[in-house]
Amino acid sequence: MNKKLEEIINNNRKYVQEGLVASYIPELAKANKDHLAVHIFDVNCNENYFGDVDVKFTIQSVSKVITLICALLDKGEDQVFEKVGTEPSSDAFNSIARLETRASHIPLNPFINAGAIVTTALINGDNGYEKFERVRNLIRKMADNDSIDVNYNVYNSEKLTGNTNRALAYYLKGAGIICDGVEDILDAYFKLCSLEVTARDIAKIASVLANKGVAPWSNERIIGVDHTRIVLAIMTTCGLYDSSGNFAVKVGMPSKSGVGGCIMSVAPKKMGVCVFGPALDQSGNSMAGKMVLEEVSKELDLSIF
Amino acid sequence: MNKKLEEIINNNRKYVQEGLVASYIPELAKANKDHLAVHIFDVNCNENYFGDVDVKFTIQSVSKVITLICALLDKGEDQVFEKVGTEPSSDAFNSIARLETRASHIPLNPFINAGAIVTTALINGDNGYEKFERVRNLIRKMADNDSIDVNYNVYNSEKLTGNTNRALAYYLKGAGIICDGVEDILDAYFKLCSLEVTARDIAKIASVLANKGVAPWSNERIIGVDHTRIVLAIMTTCGLYDSSGNFAVKVGMPSKSGVGGCIMSVAPKKMGVCVFGPALDQSGNSMAGKMVLEEVSKELDLSIF
Amino acid sequence: MNKKLEEIINNNRKYVQEGLVASYIPELAKANKDHLAVHIFDVNCNENYFGDVDVKFTIQSVSKVITLICALLDKGEDQVFEKVGTEPSSDAFNSIARLETRASHIPLNPFINAGAIVTTALINGDNGYEKFERVRNLIRKMADNDSIDVNYNVYNSEKLTGNTNRALAYYLKGAGIICDGVEDILDAYFKLCSLEVTARDIAKIASVLANKGVAPWSNERIIGVDHTRIVLAIMTTCGLYDSSGNFAVKVGMPSKSGVGGCIMSVAPKKMGVCVFGPALDQSGNSMAGKMVLEEVSKELDLSIF
Amino acid sequence: MNKKLEEIINNNRKYVQEGLVASYIPELAKANKDHLAVHIFDVNCNENYFGDVDVKFTIQSVSKVITLICALLDKGEDQVFEKVGTEPSSDAFNSIARLETRASHIPLNPFINAGAIVTTALINGDNGYEKFERVRNLIRKMADNDSIDVNYNVYNSEKLTGNTNRALAYYLKGAGIICDGVEDILDAYFKLCSLEVTARDIAKIASVLANKGVAPWSNERIIGVDHTRIVLAIMTTCGLYDSSGNFAVKVGMPSKSGVGGCIMSVAPKKMGVCVFGPALDQSGNSMAGKMVLEEVSKELDLSIF
Repeated sequence: MNKKLEEIINNNRKYVQEGLVASYIPELAKANKDHLAVHIFDVNCNENYFGDVDVKFTIQSVSKVITLICALLDKGEDQVFEKVGTEPSSDAFNSIARLETRASHIPLNPFINAGAIVTTALINGDNGYEKFERVRNLIRKMADNDSIDVNYNVYNSEKLTGNTNRALAYYLKGAGIICDGVEDILDAYFKLCSLEVTARDIAKIASVLANKGVAPWSNERIIGVDHTRIVLAIMTTCGLYDSSGNFAVKVGMPSKSGVGGCIMSVAPKKMGVCVFGPALDQSGNSMAGKMVLEEVSKELDLSIF
Repeated sequence: MNKKLEEIINNNRKYVQEGLVASYIPELAKANKDHLAVHIFDVNCNENYFGDVDVKFTIQSVSKVITLICALLDKGEDQVFEKVGTEPSSDAFNSIARLETRASHIPLNPFINAGAIVTTALINGDNGYEKFERVRNLIRKMADNDSIDVNYNVYNSEKLTGNTNRALAYYLKGAGIICDGVEDILDAYFKLCSLEVTARDIAKIASVLANKGVAPWSNERIIGVDHTRIVLAIMTTCGLYDSSGNFAVKVGMPSKSGVGGCIMSVAPKKMGVCVFGPALDQSGNSMAGKMVLEEVSKELDLSIF
Repeated sequence: MNKKLEEIINNNRKYVQEGLVASYIPELAKANKDHLAVHIFDVNCNENYFGDVDVKFTIQSVSKVITLICALLDKGEDQVFEKVGTEPSSDAFNSIARLETRASHIPLNPFINAGAIVTTALINGDNGYEKFERVRNLIRKMADNDSIDVNYNVYNSEKLTGNTNRALAYYLKGAGIICDGVEDILDAYFKLCSLEVTARDIAKIASVLANKGVAPWSNERIIGVDHTRIVLAIMTTCGLYDSSGNFAVKVGMPSKSGVGGCIMSVAPKKMGVCVFGPALDQSGNSMAGKMVLEEVSKELDLSIF
Repeated sequence: MNKKLEEIINNNRKYVQEGLVASYIPELAKANKDHLAVHIFDVNCNENYFGDVDVKFTIQSVSKVITLICALLDKGEDQVFEKVGTEPSSDAFNSIARLETRASHIPLNPFINAGAIVTTALINGDNGYEKFERVRNLIRKMADNDSIDVNYNVYNSEKLTGNTNRALAYYLKGAGIICDGVEDILDAYFKLCSLEVTARDIAKIASVLANKGVAPWSNERIIGVDHTRIVLAIMTTCGLYDSSGNFAVKVGMPSKSGVGGCIMSVAPKKMGVCVFGPALDQSGNSMAGKMVLEEVSKELDLSIF
């Protein structure tokens, strides 16, 4: 299969030229847009990969999946979905308009920025740092990698330039959706976005979701079956921002993208897949990554549809 | 299994009281909100059902699925998705605002009214009646029932009161998305919404989708594998209007609802399911129907997630 | 003063190059964008003018002022403002989104297309033609010119391409704001937009408003003092679509523009002014016309502020 | 005339029951909704008044007028209107959605919260306190009252609960419209809103605007003629939030309201008028105040239309 992945990567390398690296966070703008990698970790612990798999990148919005899982663990389904919806958004990932125009003012879903700020606030902990640590620890556990930690250059860059996220958080606070100190919550949020990972880490996290919440390498249950199902459903409808629907048609795997250039995809009962390519499309999803996943999904028949 | 379905229907009968029958089409307002039925047709042609399965109802927006299939057959994927998107909408099913605010002016997806007006216009045929006939014939074929026809009371009621749909169609024409005569297209659209079916008809249509496009009773391929996959993906992300995301979390089956009170659901490789209950929730989906499907999905483990 | 007007026209001739003639109505696209004219008619019947004052043009949205006056005469203030608001719109003149998002669904004001469709419907008359005739007759009377009539080329062009207006009208009908036949109302609306006038006609109409509703040439009262005041207020806040606020700052005269290239302005107690130049800015207002009016207003101290 | 004002106040006292005092700032919720006052200061320094004219109240959004004047003095027309528009808004005074949906992201006008945050940032000064002092000093000068100062209870209450304003400010910073420290600018903004005044103070400020920028009591020019005209135009089109258009129709005086319950109105060349009544309508304007002004405007023929 590594041979197959090599072919797929080479077929789709051309697409790195069509995207743009994220520029609104200056530190991310330094990414090398030529990078392209795919890593597969299946529920029997077999691994296959090709490309720039050793390059580290920041997890960015893929962390929103684990923040949601952690919020579900800490507060339960009812409390979580009282504060954040489960509906896809046809607006940009950092959009604020809909918070105002919806009667309830709650974010449409936990995978847009406003929603993830809410789920971060829902994590147990007396302060932002404790909340951050809880989610980071869960990420480490799901990736089976205790060395995962914050890239402080990216974190500082996010913190410095994160004014639209501040606007979202203060709006949510003004509307009574979050109560904590905004900077404290945002600090946890920015740190979680800045966690540095490899494609292998993300593929292993995805493999836990593919394996109904049980770590394939230890058979330890990390997430309940119900929560796993909820998370996969929301990844399917909301995982690629305002092109989630198109991605469902083309790829058909529950996935979550991040502006660091990674997409985490799940083939239920089969495998976790990570693609990485920092050049992004207009919605903020890895341009070449989407194309690679489309081919991987077809070759390995991974679509859930 | 019929016993099990009986239990589920009885468990959820109470929810018929919480919804309201569609009132914006006067003829639909006459529906009996106490009706509740479930019908299952599996890929081996086994049938199970319980409740008011003999009641006829109009197909309404469930027809949008077959209109999309027909448009894909007639014009192909590229031409169809140039005129209508595949993204879920967080607005109401008959919303017009987004047509104006999106740069492209194309409807977000083919399962909201604006989108289905576009797919209706894409059907081959020299006029509205020919377009209507093509889709109706495909519906008859997928349901294996040549007696399916228009309920003219409902049709006349829709035609008389369908001014918001006229607004959508004229807006689309003004924006150059559709070119044909608006009343002609709408006539086909209203007729397709007014086709009268039973739960069994819809379950059989769903079973074709569950069986990758092949009719279980004849082994005839009706829809291509790729088109089937596309349609199931869009049903998952867009099938229940602005509560599609919530439905994916709760039920997890590709589905499409109609304001006549029916929901058509697909368990890929397994079965087609139809629930019918005309009392609707705020998004226009069968209130008790959703609850029945949630239980059916859990009992029979039908979620794709 | 004619000398002064000559200077002003010549100073601002360059701006005709910066605008574009209306292209969405094919017949209007044929206008000569080099035309530029100003005509002043004061409350003592003195006239001053310069430029292409003999060129005929269609009145377009300037007719919305007289339609409002006629609706106020026919139905009174209360009934009119129950169906249409008096608030400025920051959206385009033909926008539909706000009709949906406002709780009441009534148009923001009578000087955007949606609002004028409502005031047209409010005119007394058994059908569209009678409504049209009533407003046309009032226009003739205010302009003291019985030869004002429809330019049928423009009318046919509007009727053929007026699908966005049809969308507005059907949306309003669906929301219960108008009850009559949509095509009948739109026919009156399109005919009123297509009335052919000269700058002198418009300056005379404006002079009636400047003279508190009394025709300066006959001392006949045509409009009540209260209605005149209402109309001047709405012209000030809503007369130039989504650049009404900027125009109030720069020019400071109650005005109404039309996409035929004319702007009608009122200097209360002093004079009526018409400028004409078919090259439009992005909001649909005469580009050079605005600049001419700014200079006229300064030179003659006509701002109400 | 005092007799006349007494009558008017008494005629309209009933309307205090129909409004609600501002509740989103807890300290304002303590206002006595029965208060009602009118104070007139004409350009010849004659004064007339009736009602609760000795009650102090916070200036709130009426300060936005003087902040705009100060920004125009400090930065000039071009620089100011590059950062804030002059168009009326049909959204609520603290709305954020339009900042996102407008291509330029600049606030529609300086009299909604977002716009006034921008004009506050434009005031000369090395920090928020210096900016605050400059505007406060201009307010003192225009009111001829050096004792005007912050009500610290209201200020603290605003600061504590001003999260929607923080959202606006951070959004503007994220969009590059403001560059300074958000809390610093907001501190100036909150302090300016919390300045405590009487109806007489506001009537005198208005009299300067009525007198083309010259203080009637000293003949000192405080504001240039052009700036005065700009400010009066924007007061007319934008002064009463999303009911500015209706107010222009009913009252016809350039005005600005504040949620403290005061409305400042200008009769150009004649007089400044202040009404005060803390019970507000849905747009945030004094309920009884509007009715009093309508009657005052009619009685004294003060409409500019």
